[in-house]
Amino acid sequence: MEALHKLFNPESVAVIGASEKEGTVGRAILENLLATFKGEILPVNYKYDYVLGLKCYRRVADLPRAPDLAVVAVPATSTPGVIRDLCNLGTRVSIVISAGFREVGPEGAKLEVELVKAARSCGMRVVGPNCLGVYDPWNGLDTIFNPNDRQSKPRAGGVAFLSQSGALGAAILDWLAEAGIGLSKFVSYGNAADVKEWELVEYLANDSRTAVIALYVEGVEDGRRFMASIRKAVAMGKPVVLLKGGRTEAGSSAASSHTGSLAGRAEIFISAARQAGAIVVDNLGELINVLKVLTWGGPPKGRRVGIVTNGGGAGVLAADSVELAGLSLAPLTEGTLEYLRGALPPASSIKNPVDILGDAPPERYAVAVEAVAEDPNVDSVVIITLMQSPAFDPRRFIELMRGIKEKVRKPMVLVAPGGGYTVKHSREVERELAIPYFRTSEEAVKALKLATEWYERYKSVEGERK
Amino acid sequence: MEALHKLFNPESVAVIGASEKEGTVGRAILENLLATFKGEILPVNYKYDYVLGLKCYRRVADLPRAPDLAVVAVPATSTPGVIRDLCNLGTRVSIVISAGFREVGPEGAKLEVELVKAARSCGMRVVGPNCLGVYDPWNGLDTIFNPNDRQSKPRAGGVAFLSQSGALGAAILDWLAEAGIGLSKFVSYGNAADVKEWELVEYLANDSRTAVIALYVEGVEDGRRFMASIRKAVAMGKPVVLLKGGRTEAGSSAASSHTGSLAGRAEIFISAARQAGAIVVDNLGELINVLKVLTWGGPPKGRRVGIVTNGGGAGVLAADSVELAGLSLAPLTEGTLEYLRGALPPASSIKNPVDILGDAPPERYAVAVEAVAEDPNVDSVVIITLMQSPAFDPRRFIELMRGIKEKVRKPMVLVAPGGGYTVKHSREVERELAIPYFRTSEEAVKALKLATEWYERYKSVEGERK
Repeated sequence: MEALHKLFNPESVAVIGASEKEGTVGRAILENLLATFKGEILPVNYKYDYVLGLKCYRRVADLPRAPDLAVVAVPATSTPGVIRDLCNLGTRVSIVISAGFREVGPEGAKLEVELVKAARSCGMRVVGPNCLGVYDPWNGLDTIFNPNDRQSKPRAGGVAFLSQSGALGAAILDWLAEAGIGLSKFVSYGNAADVKEWELVEYLANDSRTAVIALYVEGVEDGRRFMASIRKAVAMGKPVVLLKGGRTEAGSSAASSHTGSLAGRAEIFISAARQAGAIVVDNLGELINVLKVLTWGGPPKGRRVGIVTNGGGAGVLAADSVELAGLSLAPLTEGTLEYLRGALPPASSIKNPVDILGDAPPERYAVAVEAVAEDPNVDSVVIITLMQSPAFDPRRFIELMRGIKEKVRKPMVLVAPGGGYTVKHSREVERELAIPYFRTSEEAVKALKLATEWYERYKSVEGERK
Repeated sequence: MEALHKLFNPESVAVIGASEKEGTVGRAILENLLATFKGEILPVNYKYDYVLGLKCYRRVADLPRAPDLAVVAVPATSTPGVIRDLCNLGTRVSIVISAGFREVGPEGAKLEVELVKAARSCGMRVVGPNCLGVYDPWNGLDTIFNPNDRQSKPRAGGVAFLSQSGALGAAILDWLAEAGIGLSKFVSYGNAADVKEWELVEYLANDSRTAVIALYVEGVEDGRRFMASIRKAVAMGKPVVLLKGGRTEAGSSAASSHTGSLAGRAEIFISAARQAGAIVVDNLGELINVLKVLTWGGPPKGRRVGIVTNGGGAGVLAADSVELAGLSLAPLTEGTLEYLRGALPPASSIKNPVDILGDAPPERYAVAVEAVAEDPNVDSVVIITLMQSPAFDPRRFIELMRGIKEKVRKPMVLVAPGGGYTVKHSREVERELAIPYFRTSEEAVKALKLATEWYERYKSVEGERK
């Protein structure tokens, strides 16, 4: 664990293969570190005395001291030597970005064995190879070499994200950034030649900055330990969200030529992960969606959903979504029904879904949402706003909902189908009120359902321990 | 049919309840017509001599001649009288926008019977009541009263869209506009007191501007005729895409208090619609997605999918999506494999999914996509672009793909997960090349699959007739 702690909290980082050459990985990593990392940066490249204004060392052996962390971006064949040199110096953890190992065939696999042997000879830990390494917005550590104008990176927050695939991990990171989800740590662990995904999960289970752990995994070497690490995180009250690549024969065969990992019997793997308490999602969209719910609303504490809508048809689709997801429409209490009957126009439909009609101004939303959210029969609230309606003023809606969001302790989500105007203002709601926004009720309800299931599992684990 | 033809092609339109008053339905409709309708506009309102610069008639009886179409936006209780007056004048078709009929209870239901009786007395046809009426971008007929800054409307094109729900219909229209899907006609038919959805489908089956018919339906009165109208459209080679509201008990109960329609036994309805050849979608997102595929690529003529990707993980997820959707990964021919082996870098994965690696420039995409698309074993191509990669230049990609898109006759779709940069450039691909864009492979493949199923059904119907 000490080595992993250094991985995320180094005071000095050496970049082996640092470069001034435009378009190289070695330059991009150096630029990223220069932009955000607060500690010491030590470039190593036999070609330079200086790179990007920093003193450059010709060889690892020339470094003035052992860096806490080394990022290695040199040709695969040079990596075992570099690792041995770092070992001799006393470095305890490295990230090997370089590709050309197990994933390319038997020759690469041999090289990978050699790499691990070199590291183990001195007890050094290695992340990778064939990976993007680490991004930690809390301390500015960033070894993702995509250009920043193409690849956004999330701000600091509570979600840790581990990815076996580098490129896909980067795409998800980019998507998370756009969605406004804050990150505690990102690790692209690639071939997992030494540091395994289960060690990272265990580390994150104890990491105070991490509230939720998300993973993209194709295959693991040690299923037993992986499941145990999930159980540990869940027992700590941290949801684990898992996207498994290679769930089918076609996907699993593609995975074997990707990370060289055996995807294994996917069904057994997934059912074991669910048993361990993981939230297993079916695709990237669901991954983002459930992270939104967990980050901004927390999991619902039960399955009963209240719906408030200004459009009957949208209410019908939401009711369908609730039942199809295995949740239920909350039966509103007599008190709530009576209150709504008095407070809403007579043509409104009072029974859940509560249809406050197409001419509903924000004030009517405030009345209905508060009443529904405070109903003891309601565990979560789906608020549907068809923003095309002339009566719906999104800025006023945000003003009024702010107070309700502060008072209400139950998860609320926003559903708003439509075009540019709707998306723009829905994102404002999401950003300003931390109410997750979805374009369809199906997405919203599926995310609520997955979060609810996790909570139920967590409660039952907690119960067992009492 | 003649009355319906007039509905979409009137030379003169009367607006009963036209108004100058800001925020009224009567004003919004008049403004829309003034902005886009080329024919004569005849406002009627007992309060005005002029509205928005147009001569206004006090009563329907005062109109100088029978308008081809009347749009009625007066209180529900006044509508039977207005319809009788229009009848006497000789108008053959009306749209009743007004609400307050069957959907509000027994009193409204009586009023609706009276309304229909008034129309039938002279053979007038009525669309609605409780609806948004018609939007026809080909001739500028527009009775949707949402403000244009909140509610975009699609340009002219080949998709006809019918919606039982007005507000939801408007939201979908807004979404279709953003997605860039062109429309032949939109009809919000509301309570369907007189003109039924099946009549509209039959009309559209014969409409030369309509290539695809999409519907949001909660319930129909005459299932047999509805299914027959779908069969007719399918036999004409026109895909019918159906979103059914009220598929569950919860949704169906919500529907009964919405449009007052009995959603009926949803499973039987849906399976009959599938039998008739309809593409039944599960939610709004799927509706938009399948319309994209049908509009821009046409249905794949078989189930074998080729995948080209610059990211292994994304390829794995796409392969999973293909198998889970009931499609299959195309086995590439020996010729294609040999060609790709020579044309791509050695570390590439040649077997479908074709992984052209993270450093793939657009030129490498062009080589791989063309080879895969021209393989006789391939029915459709999924192109995955992780645009975070520094080597991927989206403008150059568009340039190179333009030629391929022109040559290749098979459907191609673009999958690009990520944030703002990715979405922006993916939309450019979609707009400039008419290659449908999806953020996840799951969405893309589901849309391809639904379109393929329709095509298979259409072929089998065609075969039966031979």
